[in-house]
Amino acid sequence: MESMMIYMPIAMALLGLAYMLVKKSWVMKQDAGDGKMKEISDYIYEGALAFLNAEYRLLAVFVLIVSIALTAVSFIVPTTHWLIVIAFIFGAVFSAFAGNIGMKIATKTNVRTTQAARTSLPNALKISFGGGTVMGLGVAGLAVLGLTAFFIIFFHVFMGGVWTNTMDMTIVLETLAGFSLGAESIALFARVGGGIYTKAADVGADLVGKVEAGIPEDDPRNPATIADNVGDNVGDVAGMGADLFGSYVATVLAAMVLGNYVIKDMGGNIGEAFGGIGPILLPMAIAGAGIIISVIGTMLVKIKNNDAKEAQVMGALNLGNWVSIALVAVSCFALVTWMLPETMQMNFFGEGLQDISSMRVFYATLVGLFVGAVISSVTEYYTGLGKSPILKIVQQSSTGAGTNIIAGLATGMISTFPSVLLFAGAIWASYAFAGFYGVALAASAMMATTAMQLAIDAFGPISDNAGGIAEMSEQEPIVRERTDILDSVGNTTAATGKGFAIASAALTSLALFAAYVTFTGIDGINIFKAPVLAMLFVGGMVPVVFSALAMNAVGKAAMQMVNEVRRQFREIPGIMEGTGKPQYDKCVAISTKASLKEMMLPGILTIGFPLVIAFVPMIFGMDSLAIAEMLGGYMAGVTVSGVLWAIFQNNAGGAWDNAKKSFEAGVMINGEMTYKGSDAHKAAVTGDTVGDPFKDTSGPSMNILIKLTCLIGLVIAPILGGHTVETAVTDTMMKHEISKEIKVEMESADADNARAVITASYTEDGKTITEEQVVEGTLEEVKAKITELKNKENN
Amino acid sequence: MESMMIYMPIAMALLGLAYMLVKKSWVMKQDAGDGKMKEISDYIYEGALAFLNAEYRLLAVFVLIVSIALTAVSFIVPTTHWLIVIAFIFGAVFSAFAGNIGMKIATKTNVRTTQAARTSLPNALKISFGGGTVMGLGVAGLAVLGLTAFFIIFFHVFMGGVWTNTMDMTIVLETLAGFSLGAESIALFARVGGGIYTKAADVGADLVGKVEAGIPEDDPRNPATIADNVGDNVGDVAGMGADLFGSYVATVLAAMVLGNYVIKDMGGNIGEAFGGIGPILLPMAIAGAGIIISVIGTMLVKIKNNDAKEAQVMGALNLGNWVSIALVAVSCFALVTWMLPETMQMNFFGEGLQDISSMRVFYATLVGLFVGAVISSVTEYYTGLGKSPILKIVQQSSTGAGTNIIAGLATGMISTFPSVLLFAGAIWASYAFAGFYGVALAASAMMATTAMQLAIDAFGPISDNAGGIAEMSEQEPIVRERTDILDSVGNTTAATGKGFAIASAALTSLALFAAYVTFTGIDGINIFKAPVLAMLFVGGMVPVVFSALAMNAVGKAAMQMVNEVRRQFREIPGIMEGTGKPQYDKCVAISTKASLKEMMLPGILTIGFPLVIAFVPMIFGMDSLAIAEMLGGYMAGVTVSGVLWAIFQNNAGGAWDNAKKSFEAGVMINGEMTYKGSDAHKAAVTGDTVGDPFKDTSGPSMNILIKLTCLIGLVIAPILGGHTVETAVTDTMMKHEISKEIKVEMESADADNARAVITASYTEDGKTITEEQVVEGTLEEVKAKITELKNKENN
Repeated sequence: MESMMIYMPIAMALLGLAYMLVKKSWVMKQDAGDGKMKEISDYIYEGALAFLNAEYRLLAVFVLIVSIALTAVSFIVPTTHWLIVIAFIFGAVFSAFAGNIGMKIATKTNVRTTQAARTSLPNALKISFGGGTVMGLGVAGLAVLGLTAFFIIFFHVFMGGVWTNTMDMTIVLETLAGFSLGAESIALFARVGGGIYTKAADVGADLVGKVEAGIPEDDPRNPATIADNVGDNVGDVAGMGADLFGSYVATVLAAMVLGNYVIKDMGGNIGEAFGGIGPILLPMAIAGAGIIISVIGTMLVKIKNNDAKEAQVMGALNLGNWVSIALVAVSCFALVTWMLPETMQMNFFGEGLQDISSMRVFYATLVGLFVGAVISSVTEYYTGLGKSPILKIVQQSSTGAGTNIIAGLATGMISTFPSVLLFAGAIWASYAFAGFYGVALAASAMMATTAMQLAIDAFGPISDNAGGIAEMSEQEPIVRERTDILDSVGNTTAATGKGFAIASAALTSLALFAAYVTFTGIDGINIFKAPVLAMLFVGGMVPVVFSALAMNAVGKAAMQMVNEVRRQFREIPGIMEGTGKPQYDKCVAISTKASLKEMMLPGILTIGFPLVIAFVPMIFGMDSLAIAEMLGGYMAGVTVSGVLWAIFQNNAGGAWDNAKKSFEAGVMINGEMTYKGSDAHKAAVTGDTVGDPFKDTSGPSMNILIKLTCLIGLVIAPILGGHTVETAVTDTMMKHEISKEIKVEMESADADNARAVITASYTEDGKTITEEQVVEGTLEEVKAKITELKNKENN
Repeated sequence: MESMMIYMPIAMALLGLAYMLVKKSWVMKQDAGDGKMKEISDYIYEGALAFLNAEYRLLAVFVLIVSIALTAVSFIVPTTHWLIVIAFIFGAVFSAFAGNIGMKIATKTNVRTTQAARTSLPNALKISFGGGTVMGLGVAGLAVLGLTAFFIIFFHVFMGGVWTNTMDMTIVLETLAGFSLGAESIALFARVGGGIYTKAADVGADLVGKVEAGIPEDDPRNPATIADNVGDNVGDVAGMGADLFGSYVATVLAAMVLGNYVIKDMGGNIGEAFGGIGPILLPMAIAGAGIIISVIGTMLVKIKNNDAKEAQVMGALNLGNWVSIALVAVSCFALVTWMLPETMQMNFFGEGLQDISSMRVFYATLVGLFVGAVISSVTEYYTGLGKSPILKIVQQSSTGAGTNIIAGLATGMISTFPSVLLFAGAIWASYAFAGFYGVALAASAMMATTAMQLAIDAFGPISDNAGGIAEMSEQEPIVRERTDILDSVGNTTAATGKGFAIASAALTSLALFAAYVTFTGIDGINIFKAPVLAMLFVGGMVPVVFSALAMNAVGKAAMQMVNEVRRQFREIPGIMEGTGKPQYDKCVAISTKASLKEMMLPGILTIGFPLVIAFVPMIFGMDSLAIAEMLGGYMAGVTVSGVLWAIFQNNAGGAWDNAKKSFEAGVMINGEMTYKGSDAHKAAVTGDTVGDPFKDTSGPSMNILIKLTCLIGLVIAPILGGHTVETAVTDTMMKHEISKEIKVEMESADADNARAVITASYTEDGKTITEEQVVEGTLEEVKAKITELKNKENN
């Protein structure tokens, strides 16, 4: 029987999207200001669109190539279905569409925020946060809608909408992995390309404009200033959106895969309730509930006082955030107790089957919510203005750029201590509560508030842009003051948002990693095998090299920008006097082109390495389960090293940034107040230059790297594992044991060349007599023989 | 029968030490120059001695504490013998004594090199390299002597000097691990403390002397200048020596442990040849041969032409190095074919027992020699003057310190790519050739040239010091020119030496890691178990935090030095005019005290984490094999992350250093020759400030961190594993199978509460009849029962 519950997440997603449309039309109705403001806003909008269009063209080519490759694979490998190609394409399109929504609304909201800030701070917050809400709900709504819709379709195609067995469900979920792969591939373009774009424009604008020509930031005479503002949207809005879209989809998918394995551990059937797929539906239901909860949360974000300061704005955001988290906890309790069997059996490595009560799954979700909340505080501690690590960096700036850099690096490095202990504790605890299903549900619960997190996160760059527009259109100081309050809060939420993104990527990768092991059918990943250990090393190296490539890419792209701005200053008459018009579009085009070009190499590294590890040994005839274990070692290496380098780079970058900003209000160094323009400030600016690509390009890219690596592994898994077969065999008769009398050991599970050893034993006169039979042939034949034996035994 | 071969390594070690004494007395007989030179040299000698004495005091306390702890453990845990305490103390004392020899000869050789350089470059090389040779042979000779002597002693104590079984040999080797632990503990003090010492003195001397007071480097008026020169000896000579002493001992030990497992895999007995312990003696024999080969190698290092340049000096060193490597290859071939059975059985995970010919073990040693040679070239490429990565950093210096820093960081990060692929390939290949025994022998072969490597390495700082003495004692320019040639070559060998040290630490750790798994008796380390994965994360984080602590320690210690130098400039009358005498000893005392104090926290981190992971879960009653697997995950995390951060930090630091040095001869930037004092040079100096603690403190400390972590794991292993028991059981009757008819499955191997399932089966009328018997009781009882059954079956 099919449960109506399967349609609940879709309904929630549609509700969320409907609310998004309402909010969007409300934002669009707001006053977009006068001529100059509108003009600048339009430039930013068009620049952002230009990037999106260029990205889409590249995207189309990429999707085409991968689709052809996947189609070929699906015809060669019997365990891969061609529908994965459709899922992949839609995953890419949905992700791109979500990015489109977010970028468009952000570039329309910025000028409206500036206009509102002319009269009212509460209104400016309402509008900028409204834009963020549209973005957040667009991403979360489309993610849940797409994933759930494809799940229902595949559930009907492969299983007729009715529970059959875990093998069929495995095929459903393997095909669904295509959707996640599509989404994460787009995230690669959006996050890495966006990161290069924003920093190339930023550095290019600053180096020639501020340093060489001596004109202020956001000055309309600077040809790169529009590209700079576009970059904020491309990197911080679209990049973050694609990142979390990918995490959201991948987390829920991984939790579904592990839910299927809970059913398998329970004998392949858990009864009629929820169509017999309660553990698989649960993560989708939590995601669906999360959308509605986020809507409620966003409604709570408002202030009344026109003279409010940062603390009140932050307080309003915190209220919405904490209420969301609390509501997710409540809904997790309700859904877990409602949808899961009261007691489940789960297989723990080395400990065998254990009885797990559904309450323990709920505790696992609490672990996830706890990590999501605490990682933000940890990030805030290491990067927040006025905190002790920042004050130390400020002090170290007095002895020059060298000591400033050392202090910043050390801060980023030390910050891995509490973060990693937090993650390690979370893995341990959620696993202890409910196995890897618990780990995946911890991630799902954390990700349930994605819409809210994105709203809080996107509000920052929108306010930043609003301030830029206020500056460029020469508004009264009070306008900039108001947008600065929003911007300052936005800087904090940007840092904590990065912490959330890392935590989500880490937990998502772990869940994918666990799903991978179950997909391939390997017993585990034993790093005492030298090839696995070697791949652990290689995996650990990839994030380091990826980061270096991303940093170098920023350098190269920025150099092109510098040359173009210099050319315009030289060749366009009257540009410095404000009579000649700078060619903004040329700079936008350079940033667009360079960012998309420069992200190729890191992209190839990300996608290429797992493919090489999987297919080169295959050509040399290596055993596919051994390859699966090696690839698993690689994935673990990328995840562990990637998480470390993500935390290190993001927090070092954030710390340098705020150490530099500390000088704006003045800092006390060796008993003297020190301000902007001092030598110490110059040292801090140098630190910030190093930190910029750390925190905005290479650091955030780590998230995509680790998730995409694990997803590629998951998609390759069916090719490596003879799992489909083994699942078929074990599913109907429990692993390796049909009944107490018959044991089945699958020795090989190739489609064409399977082999099983069947041992039947019985006791006679106190002695155990064993009959052994070896069955060889095609997989179908072996399966038939086992079923025959089983029936014979039961009768 | 005992083989005479067991005494061969001792003989070689004694020969090497004898040659060292001859060389030492030759060096000491050389002219030590006139009054001023002698005076400065004496200051450095006394400063170095002051550090050594302070270190020894701290050391004595540390050794006492650990000895008490080990004694307690040996009385509580039945599988740990109290002789481990004796081995530990001697390991510490031998390592300290080797450091003492090295530091004393280095501080005596420097002034003699200066004196020789007044007349002859060939003589200056001969003396400085002679000093290095004394150091190298002292370290290698004492390492082999100590390890071999204790092996013979324990072999007699536990086995009566006659092969009995692999279990008894395991106890011999476990006790011998104490020697290695002692050596590596001293290395922690020497390497980390030395690293902090040298940079604190360097930065302190530069900041106040060069920057504030405007006096040149190595100016005798600077109170910190002696501390600075002492630092070169403390860090580069004693630190590197202790590091390689530890690696040498640990590598040979690990190879011996794995040799014992080869014997086990072959059924516990391989015949009479070499007393039946050929695979265990082989690594010691290779180490012994390596000492004599190194003596030959050092004899080849000489030049004839007084007008020789860097290329000729480098050529002479290369000749000695390459001949040594080639001779080690030849001796490996001879020893392997002579000492090992022509065909061995080795157990490969997942593939069962395989026949391995002794030639494959030889191929594994070639892999090690290849890695040792190639890693130096890789390091040289990323850090060498005139190489493309350095030229890029130089170019990036033109746009300021920020871009210089980014370029340096990126270079260090990218350099992990070829290095890690090289290591991963080496692990794979040597394992494919001969299992983990192959990996350990690859490391042993690489380490066989340790004496030669150290001679090449120590010659650098000796020449550096000689140049400093020439400057301080105001010699004619030609003297400084000659020492500069040696110093310049020394800089290159210092960088490649660091590459060798990392490679040795990496391979040593892997060998220890493999030995750990065999000691604990666990099946492997499965990172699909969540607690193991969590520990992999924690392990990955530790090197990052350790590095940050080391960098901060340099900052703190340097600040104290700055304050002291400022105080002396302020309070000592006539100090700037050269009439007042600076209190060098105060600065030396500060560096000494601060370095020993500041290394406490990283030291506690290194030693504390594995102890917490092992013993806290034990208190909560966790299964000891599960803990062993977790600790293994932690060790793997530390090793992978530690190797990455070692390569990254060493190469980034080396690259910045040489980018800065490039300006001395002038560099072409944007078509203009740019020299010292330019803005670009200032940016490069900032980069070097960051690079200094990277390459001389935190980077090299990684080696100790990973080795000591794995060694602590190895020493804890007997406490965690019920291995001794399982070894006893399996040793005499092959793993899980006494004969074809009887299988033994040890379900628990506690000393007091063992349990084994014994299954006897035979065929009758085409049916297999199985009798199962469960044996429970104390371990002794279970063992007796199994032996009884076995005898019954065989008769």
